[in-house]
Amino acid sequence: MDYRYSDRTRNIRPSAIREIIKYAVAHPDVIALSTGSPANEAIPVDEIHEISEKIFREMPLAGLQYSMTEGYPPLRATTKKRLKEDFNIGTDEDDLIITTGGQQGLSLAANVFVNPGDTVIVEQPSFVSGINAMRIHGANVIGLDMDDDGIRPEALAHVLETQDRVKMLYVIPNFQNPSGKTLSYERRKAIYALCAEHGVIILEDNPYGELRFRGEEIPSFKSMDTEGIVVYNGTYSKLLSAGMRIGFVMARKEPLQLLTIAKQFSDCHSNIFFQILTDEWLNTADVKAHVKKIQGICRDRCDFMLKLLDEKLDPRVTYTRPDGGLFLWCTLPEGCDSQELSEVALEKGVAFVPGRDFMVDNNAPCRSFRLNYTTPSYENMEKGVERLAEAVKEYFKIKGID
Amino acid sequence: MDYRYSDRTRNIRPSAIREIIKYAVAHPDVIALSTGSPANEAIPVDEIHEISEKIFREMPLAGLQYSMTEGYPPLRATTKKRLKEDFNIGTDEDDLIITTGGQQGLSLAANVFVNPGDTVIVEQPSFVSGINAMRIHGANVIGLDMDDDGIRPEALAHVLETQDRVKMLYVIPNFQNPSGKTLSYERRKAIYALCAEHGVIILEDNPYGELRFRGEEIPSFKSMDTEGIVVYNGTYSKLLSAGMRIGFVMARKEPLQLLTIAKQFSDCHSNIFFQILTDEWLNTADVKAHVKKIQGICRDRCDFMLKLLDEKLDPRVTYTRPDGGLFLWCTLPEGCDSQELSEVALEKGVAFVPGRDFMVDNNAPCRSFRLNYTTPSYENMEKGVERLAEAVKEYFKIKGID
Repeated sequence: MDYRYSDRTRNIRPSAIREIIKYAVAHPDVIALSTGSPANEAIPVDEIHEISEKIFREMPLAGLQYSMTEGYPPLRATTKKRLKEDFNIGTDEDDLIITTGGQQGLSLAANVFVNPGDTVIVEQPSFVSGINAMRIHGANVIGLDMDDDGIRPEALAHVLETQDRVKMLYVIPNFQNPSGKTLSYERRKAIYALCAEHGVIILEDNPYGELRFRGEEIPSFKSMDTEGIVVYNGTYSKLLSAGMRIGFVMARKEPLQLLTIAKQFSDCHSNIFFQILTDEWLNTADVKAHVKKIQGICRDRCDFMLKLLDEKLDPRVTYTRPDGGLFLWCTLPEGCDSQELSEVALEKGVAFVPGRDFMVDNNAPCRSFRLNYTTPSYENMEKGVERLAEAVKEYFKIKGID
Repeated sequence: MDYRYSDRTRNIRPSAIREIIKYAVAHPDVIALSTGSPANEAIPVDEIHEISEKIFREMPLAGLQYSMTEGYPPLRATTKKRLKEDFNIGTDEDDLIITTGGQQGLSLAANVFVNPGDTVIVEQPSFVSGINAMRIHGANVIGLDMDDDGIRPEALAHVLETQDRVKMLYVIPNFQNPSGKTLSYERRKAIYALCAEHGVIILEDNPYGELRFRGEEIPSFKSMDTEGIVVYNGTYSKLLSAGMRIGFVMARKEPLQLLTIAKQFSDCHSNIFFQILTDEWLNTADVKAHVKKIQGICRDRCDFMLKLLDEKLDPRVTYTRPDGGLFLWCTLPEGCDSQELSEVALEKGVAFVPGRDFMVDNNAPCRSFRLNYTTPSYENMEKGVERLAEAVKEYFKIKGID
C-alpha cells in the first residue's frame, strides 16, 4: 500500500526529546538530565490515594461513566475561582473547559484559529510539542530570539508589520521550557498592546507559573486581557500529577465554544475519575502549603545543580539561573554545536536535550542545550554533571578550544 | 475582538446529542432514551476498585507521572495478544497504540490521512462525532444509505468510480451507531476488495463488536487486511469503563508512526493510571465471563424494549431488531419528520435523538430516530416507551395520519 497521507503530517518529526528518553530507557546506565517530569517527591501520593478511596466509596459510577466534553462542572468552577482569587485571571466574559493535559489546549487553540499558511509567532527556543501542535495544523512558525527578559517587543512589532497573516503568538511567560527564562512585566504590557492592536491571539501557556521559587510574581497576559485576545492554557500536571492528564483552557465565551467543539471531536471528554479527584483535592488539601512545598523542592534541586555547574563545568559554558520551573539552559562558546556535545555526553553516560530541537529550524547547529533538575536523584545530578563536565572537556579538545 | 477562526471550524456544529443530554439534565423529569452510555450494572466497579488499590500499593508513581505517547507497553502487548487470539486481528506488520477513548482514534486517522477537500465516505446514518472528526479536518463527507445488511458495495463502487479524491471509508460494521445494523460478511468482502483496488483506507470503528448477544460473529475488515488498508479503532469504553477514556488504534507500522506523532501533539499521552488498571484487569479478571455478562445485560434490556415497542407503539412505526450493541433505530411513516416528533415527545417527558443528527445533511427532514436501551432503568424504559407511544399518537393526529 502506497499511503497517501495528509499534507499536514509532512514536516512533522517526532520530538527528539522522546527519542532521547527512549535511548535513556534502553540504556539505564545513562543519567537522564533530559526529561521534563516533576519531581517524584512533589506528587502527593497519599492524598491522591485517599481521595480515590472516597470516590470509590461515594460516587464510583460518576467516575467511570461517560461525562461532559466541557469537563466536570465542580472542577471547572473550582478552577475558575482559584484563578480569579489567586491570580486575578478571568472575567465574567471568560469561561473555562477541562482538557486532557496542557498539550491538548495547544492543539485545540491551533485547531480553532490556525489556517494552513497562517503565521504563528513563537519564542525561540520554545516547547517543541507546542511548535509542532501549531505545525500539524498548517502554521507557518516564526521564532523570536530571547534575551534574559524573554522576547523583545520591537522584534514582535517588526514581524507584525511585515507579515500579513499573523494569527497567534504562542508564549510561555514563566520559567519557559526550555530556557527557564521569564518574560518581564514591561515587555508583557508592550506585547499585549501590540497583539491587541493587530488582532493577534496570545496563546499564554503557563504550566510552570506556580513553581516560582525566587522573585516576585509577574501578572499574566490573561490578567490584563481587556480585549479578549488571550487564550490561557493551564494544567494540573505540575501541581498534582502529570500522568492523570488534566489541564484547562480559558478564553472568551465565543472562542471557548469552538474550543469545546474541537475537543468533543478530539476525545469526547477527559478522564472523569481524575477530574473528580482533582476537584476534591483542590477543595480539601492544604493547596497553598503543597505549592510552597513543591516550590521548595524545585528551588533546592535547582540550587544544587547550579552549585554543581558552578564548581565543575568549564566556565566558558554559561547557563541561566531561573527563578522557577524545571529547566536550565546552557550555552557553549561560539563555534560549538550542542548536538555534537550530546554524542560525546551519551558516550560518557549522560543525556540532555540539544537546543536545536527547540528551534524553529531544527536542522541548524545550536550552541545551547537544556538540563532538567527535577527528575534525577541528587546522586545522579552529581554524577551527571561530572560526566557532563568531562564530556565538555573532551568536546572542547576535539573542537580545538582550550 | 473580531475573532478570525480557522476555516475548518466552519460547518461544524456541536452534536445535537449533547444538547439533548443537556436538556435532559436540566429537566430531570424527562426520561432519556437519548444517551449512549453502557449500562451502569455493566461496569465492574469492585474489580476496578481492587486493582486501583493494587496500583497505589505497588506502583503509584508509575500511575501518576508522565508516560509514553504510544501507551503503557504491557497494555499494548495485552491488547495485541487479545485481538489476535480472540478475533484474528493483527499481523506482524501491524502495531497498536493506546488512545484517549475511541473518539481519539477517529480524530487521529482524519488528521493523518485527510486533506481539506478529500472525500470520506460514511454510512448513512452514522456516528455524528465520527462524521465531525472527519469534517474538522476538512473532509468532504459523502453518505451511503444502508439497508438491513448495511451499506451496499454497488453504491460504494459508484462513488469510487465517480469521485477522484476518496481517501477513506469510515464504517462501524457491528451494531452500528445509530442504526444497530450489522454489515454482512459478503458485503465486507466485496467492500474490502473495492477499497483495496482503489487504495482507499478503511477506518473500521468497532466499539460494540463484543456486545453481540445474538447470531454469529462476522470477521472484521482488519482480520482480512492483507493489503494494509485497514485502520482498526477499538475502545475499552464498553468493556470496562467509558469515563476512563482508554481506547486503541491498530494499523500498519508506517501509518501508525504518523498516528503516534499526531497523538503526541494532541495530548502527549492518555491517562496512565487507567492504562495500567485496564492492563491489570485484562490479565487478572475473568474477562470472558464479564463479556458474557454484559452481552446478557444488553440482550435483556434490548428484548425488554422491543417487547414494549411491540406492545405499545403504533405498528406503522418500524424499528430494527439488533443482534448486539446499545441502539434501536425507529422509522416513522412517509411524510413524517422525527425532529417534529421529538418536540412533542419532550413535552410528554421523553427524549430520543432525531435521525437527522446522524445524517450527512443534518438540515433535511428524517423519518428515523435513535433509541438507547442500556442507560435508562427498566422502569424508565417502560414509562419512556409509554410516553413515546402517546407522543406518536399525538404527532400522527397533528400530521393527519390515522
